[in-house]
Amino acid sequence: MATVNENYLSLQGSYLFSTIAKKVREYEETHPDANIIRLGIGDVTKPLVPAVIDALHKAVDEMSSALTFHGYAPDLGYDFLRSKIAENDFKARGIDISSDEIFVSDGAKSDTSNIQEIFAADSKVAVCDPVYPVYVDSNVMAGRAGEFDSDLMAYKRLIYMPCTKENDFVPELPKETPDLIYLCFPNNPTGMAITKERLQGFVDYALKHNAVILYDSAYEAYISDPSLPHSIYECAGAKECAIEFRSFSKNAGFTGLRLGFTVVPKDLKLSGTSLHSLWARRHGTKFNGAPYIVQRAGEAVYSPEGKEQVKKQVLDYLKNASFLKAGLEKAGFTVFGGENSPYIWLKTPNDMTSWDFFDLLLSKVNIVGTPGSGFGRSGEGYFRLTAFNTFENSALAIERIKAASLL
Amino acid sequence: MATVNENYLSLQGSYLFSTIAKKVREYEETHPDANIIRLGIGDVTKPLVPAVIDALHKAVDEMSSALTFHGYAPDLGYDFLRSKIAENDFKARGIDISSDEIFVSDGAKSDTSNIQEIFAADSKVAVCDPVYPVYVDSNVMAGRAGEFDSDLMAYKRLIYMPCTKENDFVPELPKETPDLIYLCFPNNPTGMAITKERLQGFVDYALKHNAVILYDSAYEAYISDPSLPHSIYECAGAKECAIEFRSFSKNAGFTGLRLGFTVVPKDLKLSGTSLHSLWARRHGTKFNGAPYIVQRAGEAVYSPEGKEQVKKQVLDYLKNASFLKAGLEKAGFTVFGGENSPYIWLKTPNDMTSWDFFDLLLSKVNIVGTPGSGFGRSGEGYFRLTAFNTFENSALAIERIKAASLL
Repeated sequence: MATVNENYLSLQGSYLFSTIAKKVREYEETHPDANIIRLGIGDVTKPLVPAVIDALHKAVDEMSSALTFHGYAPDLGYDFLRSKIAENDFKARGIDISSDEIFVSDGAKSDTSNIQEIFAADSKVAVCDPVYPVYVDSNVMAGRAGEFDSDLMAYKRLIYMPCTKENDFVPELPKETPDLIYLCFPNNPTGMAITKERLQGFVDYALKHNAVILYDSAYEAYISDPSLPHSIYECAGAKECAIEFRSFSKNAGFTGLRLGFTVVPKDLKLSGTSLHSLWARRHGTKFNGAPYIVQRAGEAVYSPEGKEQVKKQVLDYLKNASFLKAGLEKAGFTVFGGENSPYIWLKTPNDMTSWDFFDLLLSKVNIVGTPGSGFGRSGEGYFRLTAFNTFENSALAIERIKAASLL
Repeated sequence: MATVNENYLSLQGSYLFSTIAKKVREYEETHPDANIIRLGIGDVTKPLVPAVIDALHKAVDEMSSALTFHGYAPDLGYDFLRSKIAENDFKARGIDISSDEIFVSDGAKSDTSNIQEIFAADSKVAVCDPVYPVYVDSNVMAGRAGEFDSDLMAYKRLIYMPCTKENDFVPELPKETPDLIYLCFPNNPTGMAITKERLQGFVDYALKHNAVILYDSAYEAYISDPSLPHSIYECAGAKECAIEFRSFSKNAGFTGLRLGFTVVPKDLKLSGTSLHSLWARRHGTKFNGAPYIVQRAGEAVYSPEGKEQVKKQVLDYLKNASFLKAGLEKAGFTVFGGENSPYIWLKTPNDMTSWDFFDLLLSKVNIVGTPGSGFGRSGEGYFRLTAFNTFENSALAIERIKAASLL
């Protein structure tokens, strides 16, 4: 008799963003005239840049002729893209990562959720709190999280590393020793960055305890402070203890195009077994490559024009972030993030819960944000806004918030 | 201390097609002048049809303007595509599958390998022998297959259902009761189809034993015999026991574009738990939608021009199959498949092993095929050729084979 994977039954509620979408849909149905400003989900609003559009058209044309048609892509990605990534994202920063340590995929969400598969089923997992729900849920599905304790709002087998204003939203080293440590900097949802020194602390800790760091660097393009690390491989020893995830979604607006990559250094081994080989085997068995045309679009991001065009987009989003932050502070809110990140992490006023503040913001000023508690118990009392909407809408949001006296 | 998923260490060799690619690369390096004809991997050679190219260009243009830009796709696929699929692939055949039972993905390889996740870790799995390696390897990785017995060339916990010329390459119902049954018809690799009556037998068996059938129908477009089922949902009761996988790779040449879908009927429940909900949760957590432009390309496959254009491609490939089959029979080979399928399943001459015949074919006539034993022990002594090359190359292959007297 077939039975289901019971770990799925331990998952809490539905996926955060689906819940938000449902609430917004319901509000729209009852308030058809509301002009809702979406500062919730981390989706971009700017179109693909001209260099990417040109590359897509050109690649589509190639697909129309038998002589230039491309069928199955190489499992791990086309060399034309992997070499550009190695050159621009790593070698140009003095980091020794070679193109064959780069695995091209359909995005960081897939990779950060699938990576846990190559580790033992009883691995002890540490996550930041608050946290991008995908790291947690993918481990719940695999049975590593244990039961959910609804009093503590936490899974019993996970190690939570609180990120609070007391520690500048960068967690302390965990007391209980984990096997796997998920880190994301600049952080989603808090928008706060990590210094190289603090990151080196995690690398040293992982090396000492034979733990593996799963480092999500999807937002590195938003780093403004030149002293901050873009890659974990800027830290000594990281190639022996860390896997890094990158995305084209936030630096080049590929949310609807789907492209990302994962770096698994060849030096990274557990008891002699190469994680590079395991991940290559997973890719070869369960994935069939990112579309040729999308990989060509990714290549165009590294062309001189492409680089300039996507940099301008990122600067525009950072301008929104800065405007939102300043406006909120002026309105009397306590605000974090938004300097090296497209995310603003807001303290809810008057100790409101995150979801109460969500409802207030939606109903009173027609603004959609993301409740901090949706990212974990330490997110309670916080609220995430994103800088991915237009400048006009970001400005209008601030105007409405100032006028509404929400405090 | 972090440790690896030891199930990966039970995987045999590297992925079949990677091994073949390596052997061919080595042969090419030592024989740079060889004009190699590739009838091995199931990749298509015809370009995307004009209706698809037009849709891609149009969608790319939409991505270039903020007003028509598309970011994150709905987790389960755009309605414009899901409704076309429901209408054309199911309702037009009198099958009651609704658009919200269709999950759009980046291809059948991803879905057929990931589907096992929603079932219990100790599920007993039955596969055809020979079999598409992805079904086996994904279950090995999840620990369901047990140890590999190198004498038997089989995993100890899997139930193998031999497909031989004695049973017309359609397996008997398994004696030991499985929880999950993988079936693929028209079959990869044998190229043989299943009758509706035999398929109904499997559905009845699954209903009786509370098993779930995972039905891969990626090659249904190649069915020429009007009496054969295109979908398992043509069988009574299948909506309560079967999940079906479809692909755009073989009917529309999307191997390099990546698009597929999976049907999980809402009636399909295990002890009251909806598999539709579990798969939706998996999609929402570990996948971020197929690219907008690719989903628009998929939609174009169902336009009047698109339908006509892809039908012509399939007929051309079927013509190759028929030509290969007739030519091989004339050359004295025993040949199966190739009538309702792009695959030819060849008996190796003189009881040669499949890999010996691979080497012979590569070295003597510079033709690449796929050794039957790579698909399982019952594939030993067989060899797969595909009809996806050009007619010219297919004809040249037959010419070389006839001239070389390989028997």
